[in-house]
Amino acid sequence: MISKKMKELVANSSAIRAMFEEGARLAKIYGAENVYDFSLGNPNVEAPAQVKQAVIDIVSKEDPLMLHGYMSNAGYEDVRETIAQSINRRFGTAFGVNNIIMTVGAAGGLNVILKTIIDPGDKVLTFAPFFGEYRNYVNNVNGTLEAVPPVLETFMPDMEKFEEMIQPDTKAVIINNPNNPTGVVYPTETIEKIAGILDKKQKEYGKSIYLISDEPYRELAYGGVEVPYLTKYYKNTIVGYSYSKSLSLPGDRIGYLVIPSEMDSYEDVFEGACVANRILGFVNAPSLIQRVAARCCEEKTDIDFYDENRKILYGALKEYGFDCVEPQGAFYLFVKSPVEDEREFCAAAKKHNLLIVEGRAFGCSGYVRLAYCVSRETVVNSLPAFKALAEEYGLI
Amino acid sequence: MISKKMKELVANSSAIRAMFEEGARLAKIYGAENVYDFSLGNPNVEAPAQVKQAVIDIVSKEDPLMLHGYMSNAGYEDVRETIAQSINRRFGTAFGVNNIIMTVGAAGGLNVILKTIIDPGDKVLTFAPFFGEYRNYVNNVNGTLEAVPPVLETFMPDMEKFEEMIQPDTKAVIINNPNNPTGVVYPTETIEKIAGILDKKQKEYGKSIYLISDEPYRELAYGGVEVPYLTKYYKNTIVGYSYSKSLSLPGDRIGYLVIPSEMDSYEDVFEGACVANRILGFVNAPSLIQRVAARCCEEKTDIDFYDENRKILYGALKEYGFDCVEPQGAFYLFVKSPVEDEREFCAAAKKHNLLIVEGRAFGCSGYVRLAYCVSRETVVNSLPAFKALAEEYGLI
Repeated sequence: MISKKMKELVANSSAIRAMFEEGARLAKIYGAENVYDFSLGNPNVEAPAQVKQAVIDIVSKEDPLMLHGYMSNAGYEDVRETIAQSINRRFGTAFGVNNIIMTVGAAGGLNVILKTIIDPGDKVLTFAPFFGEYRNYVNNVNGTLEAVPPVLETFMPDMEKFEEMIQPDTKAVIINNPNNPTGVVYPTETIEKIAGILDKKQKEYGKSIYLISDEPYRELAYGGVEVPYLTKYYKNTIVGYSYSKSLSLPGDRIGYLVIPSEMDSYEDVFEGACVANRILGFVNAPSLIQRVAARCCEEKTDIDFYDENRKILYGALKEYGFDCVEPQGAFYLFVKSPVEDEREFCAAAKKHNLLIVEGRAFGCSGYVRLAYCVSRETVVNSLPAFKALAEEYGLI
Repeated sequence: MISKKMKELVANSSAIRAMFEEGARLAKIYGAENVYDFSLGNPNVEAPAQVKQAVIDIVSKEDPLMLHGYMSNAGYEDVRETIAQSINRRFGTAFGVNNIIMTVGAAGGLNVILKTIIDPGDKVLTFAPFFGEYRNYVNNVNGTLEAVPPVLETFMPDMEKFEEMIQPDTKAVIINNPNNPTGVVYPTETIEKIAGILDKKQKEYGKSIYLISDEPYRELAYGGVEVPYLTKYYKNTIVGYSYSKSLSLPGDRIGYLVIPSEMDSYEDVFEGACVANRILGFVNAPSLIQRVAARCCEEKTDIDFYDENRKILYGALKEYGFDCVEPQGAFYLFVKSPVEDEREFCAAAKKHNLLIVEGRAFGCSGYVRLAYCVSRETVVNSLPAFKALAEEYGLI
């Protein structure tokens, strides 16, 4: 007696979350130290010490009625102003309080902006491979998600296909930079190409096409790689940000949307997003955590830790004969399955207590995703298991 | 270029929220102490001292990776178990960890359960007058909300109309006890009648009809009035709870759903609600605040403060000749407008710096709502303004 849509959704429920539950089950049997769970993007680096201090300072000193009360659906004005100024300092933008809406993480923010702009039947494009939840988010508002295929050697978007796929019913494009699941960072050149194609198509169809930039991994870029700030390249950009990774606060659900003043229908979009935040049941981003985010918005998690994990795991997998693009950001490796059906490979890996996620969950069969946001021990101790797996497939 | 649905929603946006913004504007002009803002249910009683202590203890002592990390979409198991046991102790129920899903307030919980059970075109009933957001929540999942009219003398549901309105496409009924905006508490007798009608209709149509009990005001009942626990009267009941009022934490967005094991399709509903929590973008209720709620789930806000406000305001309004049912719960008064069009009355009130909300926002024209969860000074200082308003309308 649940809804038909939900019945399907439960049946096809997140492969990632299923792995997470499977990991908990295996840990009970074999002991947590003998299960190598690379399934979920759950940071294994503690939140910066400043977060703890900020929580204590704020509850100790601030007026509890203000701290725990309702505020505007967009969030506290001082929090939004602080965050706008921080973005401006770092990226040379010129945002203010009326360009920021605090959200329940990036997942909340994406649902809010899709609710604001998508009519039933509207098409939303994204670049494969992509975070599988985008399909559900677009489905929530009765839109249709289509994935632009990548150039497999680099996992950059196939620009010809992208241009072809933008049709009169295309209302938005979702981009994820750095990318989950590949770890690829789209460079300025790629962003300029995307912006150029969108500008051309906007003119051709006489309508606005919004670019939604999902940026939970913005701060996680390695070796000095720069992640371009998309509002500078395309005026109809909306940024969805999350502190889940940069401050290791995924459970606390805090992030924001950036809605630039120069975009088409700015006032409608901003006001619509405030209403959407309310009626979707978020009402506002969690109040205490909003204030913590503002206090810590220039802190960063220990990126070197992830970088080291990346180097160890990428190096070992290459050594064992696996095929994989070197990631420059986020905390994922997207490895080519040695057999066509990667579900078979995932099953084989599980026999070695290695939990990895099938590529089809990201719209890209034949690959698997490893989340290396795990402890150093998990990375190091997993290597013999990966080696054994490589031997099983005759890679070494 | 925003969606058509959102364009309408923005145009008809919450009258309550509009008043809230108007209050802020007037406060800047006249000074906050001279504006009597009865528009929003934003508690003016501080969170219990235990909340502050719980926050400090938890961030000081608990493992930050666990405290700020992802957990199951349903929430921390120990938090859910603690809350289940607390409900059991107070209401003689027998819930466990698998009957509780932590949510982003009751608003989040209602959206989650509606997403779980409603197919496009399904009908949802509620009892007028009702919290206007229900219409948006049902609309989010492409269902249709219909309001059962009240008996105006008592604001109890018209049971004949209720029975008539349950049709084969009715999938759920939302009840709000204590009621916003009337402050009425539906007694056991009323709940039994509702349950009897639903049982009869379930048999007649050979289908499940879910009763969704929205209970953010459960702890706010005055003079020893008992608020029945609905799962004991009707097995297909889902409870949506929030700590917004009981712990004065509306900004922090924390609540839960109760999904009893004995309900029809329990497993599908529970699993569906977990998936809905994830894909709607909540992912999970805010983690730190979940743990605070568990620690403080038997604490209560200062109910005597609201009771005293209620007595002063209700007494004065009756003395000035206004017509109003005496509220037994929540923190609202639902006052009959002295003129048919209550918008005229609201406009007249605003000239006295009295901010009150039109009844049509709750599906009941001809009345206005006053939220008396304000400071004692606001209540006391507003009385001359109410008196002047009464004189203007010749009530005294």
